[in-house]
Amino acid sequence: MHDLVIIGGGPAGLTAGIYAQRARLKTILFEREMVGGQIALSDVIENYPGFPSISGMELMQKFEQHARGLGLEIELAEVKDVQFEGDIKIVKTSKGDYPAKAVVVATGAKPRRLGVPGEKEFTGKGVSYCATCDGPFFRGRDVMVIGGGDTAIKEAVFLAKLAKKVYVVHRRDQLRAEKILQERAFNTENIEFLWSHILKEIKGDKFVEEAVVEDLKTGELKTVKAEGIFIFVGINPTTDFIDVEKDERGFIKTTSRMETSRSGVFAAGDCTTTPLLQVATAVGNGAIAAYEAEKYIEEFEG
Amino acid sequence: MHDLVIIGGGPAGLTAGIYAQRARLKTILFEREMVGGQIALSDVIENYPGFPSISGMELMQKFEQHARGLGLEIELAEVKDVQFEGDIKIVKTSKGDYPAKAVVVATGAKPRRLGVPGEKEFTGKGVSYCATCDGPFFRGRDVMVIGGGDTAIKEAVFLAKLAKKVYVVHRRDQLRAEKILQERAFNTENIEFLWSHILKEIKGDKFVEEAVVEDLKTGELKTVKAEGIFIFVGINPTTDFIDVEKDERGFIKTTSRMETSRSGVFAAGDCTTTPLLQVATAVGNGAIAAYEAEKYIEEFEG
Repeated sequence: MHDLVIIGGGPAGLTAGIYAQRARLKTILFEREMVGGQIALSDVIENYPGFPSISGMELMQKFEQHARGLGLEIELAEVKDVQFEGDIKIVKTSKGDYPAKAVVVATGAKPRRLGVPGEKEFTGKGVSYCATCDGPFFRGRDVMVIGGGDTAIKEAVFLAKLAKKVYVVHRRDQLRAEKILQERAFNTENIEFLWSHILKEIKGDKFVEEAVVEDLKTGELKTVKAEGIFIFVGINPTTDFIDVEKDERGFIKTTSRMETSRSGVFAAGDCTTTPLLQVATAVGNGAIAAYEAEKYIEEFEG
Repeated sequence: MHDLVIIGGGPAGLTAGIYAQRARLKTILFEREMVGGQIALSDVIENYPGFPSISGMELMQKFEQHARGLGLEIELAEVKDVQFEGDIKIVKTSKGDYPAKAVVVATGAKPRRLGVPGEKEFTGKGVSYCATCDGPFFRGRDVMVIGGGDTAIKEAVFLAKLAKKVYVVHRRDQLRAEKILQERAFNTENIEFLWSHILKEIKGDKFVEEAVVEDLKTGELKTVKAEGIFIFVGINPTTDFIDVEKDERGFIKTTSRMETSRSGVFAAGDCTTTPLLQVATAVGNGAIAAYEAEKYIEEFEG
């Protein structure tokens, strides 16, 4: 039996792994897709203290090396379910069952879909949720970014270096993104804002060719030529596999000690109801989750 | 008037500064002694994700450079008092008064004194609260470390490289420190543990010469030759200067959004009731405090 199973290999999970290894807990971390999580797809991170500017991939490689250097076992497998037998947690993965005394859930969140016509059909054919991954395909072309938060604006600025023109479609008349990101976007000549607009439909033949947007102030519909549609309208947590208390959107409720509604199950990072989704906060959460898990494991009687 | 005054230049304050600058708030940070705070005195930090091993000083220099690179104004001055005129906060410093819309308190905490005879008298004459600062004076001599937490054990291992012998005096019969630190201490030949002992008195002429310890199990008193006494028995928060709700030990109570009992005053890091005092958690706190301060300032009417 493991002392601790960590589910998710982004910043929160890897930090929990670092602390768990230092606490000499018998720990295994499961990651479904790619160690580093969503943030590894980020072109540049400028607000994790100590690194004025670093790519998401490079920062997450540093986290992974740090954790592995302390001996953390990382397994690529999907966690399908967590069952409870008394105080023992049975973590059911695509590579078998792992009983554990404690669990840290750090599964993060995935980009939210808009649900507009054409979105699903053209995903991977012009519709993308990752500018770093797919931006280079649109060199010299017109693209559209949907959203007004940090990610949307950061990625719009990134895309503007490659694309001929970037339309930013935002439902409000101002951005929510950090001011420094807003300034950069406003100072980028080939970014055009469509304020108070929403995306209604994505059209094309084999690939995306154009987008239909609605002006919320006038109700007017308009067709914009764009071969890439990058959607950054928030995230949905990956929490279906575990039965703990969540908010109405599925984010796991925790105490300030990262405890969930179930004793011995802790949660950290973007999958929780934390007020701010950042590497800096995920790291804080992950450290606390492992520290509290250690205290729980010390008292564990099975 | 400033948008934001940050009080304290350790990891929490500098992170708040990074986020505030990126939010384009008109911000000033006051630090009383040394940018970097207490952690800058740490010989080595191995659990801030991304840096497998770095000195406290070097890590804090990176934080400072990161914050200054974004234009953060840092002023060396002591904050004596914070007064409130309606929603405006008047931060009274040794270099004048600074009115602000919002305040982030990130003043950290200072080593706790034991209060035993000789401690005050011999401070700087053999009694120390910082092994990195004072350890080199005790090369080849016998020293004593008081405490059993992370700091005590980490510093004992550090001192063992310089000193002839290191006695670790701990009131319990086991350590609270991270297991990895415990192992290192147990594997260090010139560290000797005095379990279930407390320090009763420090004696000497001009400098420390010996320590009187008590065996809690037998009540027996014993005199140990030691020329350096390093005391690591916890911390007291630096929070006297501001009137917000605190716990019985003076740590500032916050919500998960780092709000204090007073609107527009946020707190972060070791001066708060956070469950874990680490760079990783201070950074999370600092990011949230600045983010919430920004939201408060946007709504501010003065």
